[in-house]
Amino acid sequence: MTEQAAPRRRGRPRGGSDSRERIIAAAVDEFGEQGYEASTIRAIATRAGVDSALVHHYFGTKADLFAEAVGIPMRPDVDVPGILDGPRDEVGERLVRYVLESFEQPEVRRRGVMLMRTAIGSRLTTPLLAGFLSRELIGRIAKRLAVDDAELRATLVASQIAGMLLTRYVLKLGPIAAATVDELVTRVGPTVQRYLFD
Amino acid sequence: MTEQAAPRRRGRPRGGSDSRERIIAAAVDEFGEQGYEASTIRAIATRAGVDSALVHHYFGTKADLFAEAVGIPMRPDVDVPGILDGPRDEVGERLVRYVLESFEQPEVRRRGVMLMRTAIGSRLTTPLLAGFLSRELIGRIAKRLAVDDAELRATLVASQIAGMLLTRYVLKLGPIAAATVDELVTRVGPTVQRYLFD
Repeated sequence: MTEQAAPRRRGRPRGGSDSRERIIAAAVDEFGEQGYEASTIRAIATRAGVDSALVHHYFGTKADLFAEAVGIPMRPDVDVPGILDGPRDEVGERLVRYVLESFEQPEVRRRGVMLMRTAIGSRLTTPLLAGFLSRELIGRIAKRLAVDDAELRATLVASQIAGMLLTRYVLKLGPIAAATVDELVTRVGPTVQRYLFD
Repeated sequence: MTEQAAPRRRGRPRGGSDSRERIIAAAVDEFGEQGYEASTIRAIATRAGVDSALVHHYFGTKADLFAEAVGIPMRPDVDVPGILDGPRDEVGERLVRYVLESFEQPEVRRRGVMLMRTAIGSRLTTPLLAGFLSRELIGRIAKRLAVDDAELRATLVASQIAGMLLTRYVLKLGPIAAATVDELVTRVGPTVQRYLFD
């Protein structure tokens, strides 16, 4: 792309009150499309219509900006305990529904897909996704199970949920991408239930 | 890395009988470490100790070389039909065991992990993994099931297998990375069995 073709908005060269939000949105797009390594602060600044210096000023390094950008608007720390504490024979279905209904929101899906792409695509950022899953999902579930193999059970749950999100939202494999939330809750819920309690 | 430090073997500058194999091995390493976008023919040539021109001569573009490099040494076209045709109540366990025992071979694991990383990390190469799964796994399974929802059932199987490989070999989440093949066959086999037949 030539300099001329880039969608710069030079009318407000630095520090507009919405610059921060524009930079975050541009970072989400850039990381999602290019992956972590190939993304540059310069390209993100161009997308946001600001100078690179402003990006560095607000967010520091590319790694700092990435960490900020992947703050996906889900609160498993708030939501998962309630799911686990409800009626026990429907925990699997409730957990699958919670994840899917979250990802049906465009902003969660966009950032979640970006996180999966970048984290899996690069050795540098893989620990970011592994850490997120371990801390926010597996750790919270294992703590409630209170059995010897709680960590393995919770990790198996994570494996099915990660595989479901990957095939539905990233690989977009036909039948699983086309299925309704209800249908997937019915099919995948019992798997999660069995990993947790059987 | 400086020019000097690169492990070039200039004694045989072009067309040695093993150059082709060295280039493939170098491509597997480079794609696996850098991802598709950040990998270059030049870096692959340097790793292989040959000139870039020789890489282009043998393999054409980066995309062509990638396609060649991901030819992972598994033959689902040969193996999966036999798994599906054996005793029906153990199909799930046999399928999980087949995938895990394949990935326990270092050469399969190395290339399989590279394929997952690059395909998920980049929009350009995502269709490569989706196509592989659809053609080699989902298509073959669905054809044997001969029920209305065979494609969805086979895709759910793919979702669990992809999630298992991702969490064990790429994210390396503790308990699933440490589990034995037998333990995972026991835990995950029934999931696959249920998706196929229940």
